[in-house]
Amino acid sequence: MLIVQKFGGTSVGDLERIQNVANRVAETKKAGNDVIVVVSAMSGETNKLVEYAEHFSSNPARAEMDMLLSSGERVTASLLSIALNEMGHNTVSMTGRKAGIITDNLHTKARIEEIDPTTMNNALKEGKIIVVAGFQGVSLEGNVTTLGRGGSDLSAVAIAGAVKADLCEIYTDVSGIYTTDPRIEPKARKLDLISYDEMLELASLGAKVLQNRSVELAKKLNVNLVTRTSFSNEEGTLITKEENIMEKPLVSGIALDKNQARISLMGVTDRPGIASDIFGKLAASDVNIDMIIQNKAHDGTTNIDFTVAKGDLYDAKNVVDGFVKSGEIKADSYNEQICKVSIVGVGMKSHTGVAAKAFLTMANDNININMISTSEIKVSMVIDEKYAELAVRSLHNAYELDK
Amino acid sequence: MLIVQKFGGTSVGDLERIQNVANRVAETKKAGNDVIVVVSAMSGETNKLVEYAEHFSSNPARAEMDMLLSSGERVTASLLSIALNEMGHNTVSMTGRKAGIITDNLHTKARIEEIDPTTMNNALKEGKIIVVAGFQGVSLEGNVTTLGRGGSDLSAVAIAGAVKADLCEIYTDVSGIYTTDPRIEPKARKLDLISYDEMLELASLGAKVLQNRSVELAKKLNVNLVTRTSFSNEEGTLITKEENIMEKPLVSGIALDKNQARISLMGVTDRPGIASDIFGKLAASDVNIDMIIQNKAHDGTTNIDFTVAKGDLYDAKNVVDGFVKSGEIKADSYNEQICKVSIVGVGMKSHTGVAAKAFLTMANDNININMISTSEIKVSMVIDEKYAELAVRSLHNAYELDK
Repeated sequence: MLIVQKFGGTSVGDLERIQNVANRVAETKKAGNDVIVVVSAMSGETNKLVEYAEHFSSNPARAEMDMLLSSGERVTASLLSIALNEMGHNTVSMTGRKAGIITDNLHTKARIEEIDPTTMNNALKEGKIIVVAGFQGVSLEGNVTTLGRGGSDLSAVAIAGAVKADLCEIYTDVSGIYTTDPRIEPKARKLDLISYDEMLELASLGAKVLQNRSVELAKKLNVNLVTRTSFSNEEGTLITKEENIMEKPLVSGIALDKNQARISLMGVTDRPGIASDIFGKLAASDVNIDMIIQNKAHDGTTNIDFTVAKGDLYDAKNVVDGFVKSGEIKADSYNEQICKVSIVGVGMKSHTGVAAKAFLTMANDNININMISTSEIKVSMVIDEKYAELAVRSLHNAYELDK
Repeated sequence: MLIVQKFGGTSVGDLERIQNVANRVAETKKAGNDVIVVVSAMSGETNKLVEYAEHFSSNPARAEMDMLLSSGERVTASLLSIALNEMGHNTVSMTGRKAGIITDNLHTKARIEEIDPTTMNNALKEGKIIVVAGFQGVSLEGNVTTLGRGGSDLSAVAIAGAVKADLCEIYTDVSGIYTTDPRIEPKARKLDLISYDEMLELASLGAKVLQNRSVELAKKLNVNLVTRTSFSNEEGTLITKEENIMEKPLVSGIALDKNQARISLMGVTDRPGIASDIFGKLAASDVNIDMIIQNKAHDGTTNIDFTVAKGDLYDAKNVVDGFVKSGEIKADSYNEQICKVSIVGVGMKSHTGVAAKAFLTMANDNININMISTSEIKVSMVIDEKYAELAVRSLHNAYELDK
C-alpha cells in the first residue's frame, strides 16, 4: 500500500516524540508499504514565531508571515528525515515547493491549486521514505505560501490525492471520531467508519480532530482518511465515501454546538425584498447565518428568527440596528443562552421516523425546541443552552449509540 | 549610494536587537541610499538546530542539515522585514533562492557559482529595502544549500558584487580591524583603511571579524568592504583595493598566531624526491604546511623543519612515523610551544629595512627567531610561545603603530 501519514504539532512536540514518530513510520515501511510523511511544526514553535512578529507589528505583511511561519515545518521535516535515515532507511525531506504543492497567492490562507507529484513519485520509485513539510506551498509567482489553520492536514490529503495513496492517516492526540463528545456522554463509542458527509455534519465533534476543509478535499479527491492517535497503536476512524460503508447506521453521532446565538426580529415590514435586504447586508458584514425561521404575524408584518455564531453577534446587531432605526423592523431581541443539537446519519435517507424520535426524546425531558432544521442526513434543534448535556445524553441513549 | 549591510547572529540576537538593526537600516535608507540587508540566524539558533540533529544522528545527511539550518536566517529576514515595514518602509524579504544565489551542490559548504540579481534589481527599482536570508543558496538541482562558516558574509559580498553596490558593510560586535590584538597591546589603533592583501595576511587579527573566504571574494569582485560594530555609530575599517589607498603605510599591523606546531626531521636520506614524498603524503593526509626550512647536515643528510596548525599535528606525526620506521628519517621532534608573529604592510614593497627592524627588535628583547618567512607584504617569524605578547608589543612600538 501507499500510505500518507500526517503528524501534528503535539505528535512532534519534542525530540523524543519525533523519534517515536520515526519508529512508527519505520514500522509502516517495514510492513511493506510505501510511505509519505507530512509533518507540522513542533508544538509551540508557530505560536512563538507569531509572537515574535507581533512584537514588531500588529498587522505584519502576510507574505512575510508565510516566509516566517513556513520555517517551523522545515525543521521538523529535516529532523524526522535524519532520524529515519539513522535507522537505516533511505529518506528525503521536501519543502512544499519541492513536493510540487502549487497554491494561489493568498498569503497565510492560500488554497492548493494543484500538486505536481513528479518529484515525489520519483523518490518513491527509488524506495525512499518522503518527509514533507506540511502547511506550505509555493505560489505561481514562486513565493512561499501557507495554507492557514489545519494546513498540514490539507497538505496530507492533497498529497494523498495526487499520488493516489491507498490511505491518508491523520495522527493527533485523539483516537478517532466518537458518537458524541465523551466528556458529555461517557458511554460515547468510537466509530470504525463514517462517511465524508456525516463527518462534515458532525463538524463540532470532529473540529478538534479534523477541519471541514480537509474532509471536503478528501471527499473531492476520494481519499480514504483515517484519524488516529500517535500515542498508542489503537485503531482510528476511517472516513470514506458512502458506497464503501456496507451497513449504514441510522444515526452515526450526536453533535453539540454551543457557539450559537439567536436573533429575533419582530414586526418586519412586509414588503418584497425586505428579507433579501436584511440578509444581504448581514452577508456583506461577513455574518454567517445558520438557521432561519420566518412566520407571518396577525398584523400583516413578519417575524424572522435566525442563528449566528456568537462571534458574529456584534456585527449582526449593527446591521439589525439600522433597520430598527429606519422603522422597517419594530423590535429585535437576542439570546446567547442557546445551543444546537444535531443528529447525523446516512441511514436517515432511507428510514422514516428518525426526526420524530428526536422530538419525542426532547418532549420526554420537557425540553422546548425553539427551531428545527433538517437535511438529508441531519436533524438540528435549537434548545436552551442549560439543557445541552441532558439532550445529548438522552438522544445518545434513544438511538442506542453506545451499542 | 547602493549599500549592502550584513548583520551577524549577535547583532540580531533578540527582538530588541532586531529593532535596533531596523533603526540603523532605516537611517541609511532615509539618508538617500538604496539598501540590501543580509542577516544571519539569531545567535544560538543554529547551534540549537545542530544539537537537535545530533540527537538523532552523529552523521546526519548534509542535504538534510541544509534544509534544517537554512530555516534560522529565514526567520530573522522576515522579522526584520516586518519591523522595517511597520516603520513605513516598503520592504521585501528573500530567501537565498529568491535572491538568485546559485551554488554548487556541496551541501553544508557550498560555493556560490553565480548570482542572478534580476529579482533584487527589480525590487530596488520599486524603492524597496530588501532583506536577504544569508548563509544559503540553491543548487542547480533546486535544493537549498548552505555556505558553511561565515556564509552570511559571503552572501553579502557576493550580492554586493552582483548588484554593483558602492559599499558592503559587515556589522559585528567588533568595531573594525586593529593594528594588533588590543587585549595584548592596549595601544592598538583601529585602522581606517587596509588593502585586501594586507587583510588576508592579517587573518589572525581579522578572523573573529571576517573570514579570508569573504575577503578573497571581495577582492575578486572588487567590493569595498567595511567592518564595523552594530552597537554604536563608530566608523569601521574599509577594506579596499591597494590603488584606493593613497598613503601606503610601511606596516599596517602585527598578527599573532599561537595555533602553530613545529616539526623537526633530522637526518633525512638525501635522495631525489624525498621531500616530495614526505610533503605529498602530508598533503594526502590533509595536513596544511605553513613554513618550511631545509638545510644540509655535515653527514650528507638533510634536516627539514616545518610548521603545521596544532590540530594537524597528530596526522602529521602519523605520516612522519612511517618514514622514521623505513629509516629514511633518522629522528624527529615536535614543539607545540611556539608561535608565529607577522608584520604586514603594503609599504614594504617599496621600502627596505622593514625586516631588519623586526629582527633587531627581537634581538633587543633577547628573543631567538627559529624560522623566518617573507612575502612581498609580510615578514613572519616563529619564536618561543612564551615571548608571544612581548614580541607583539615590542614590534607594535618599533613600527610606531600607535601613532
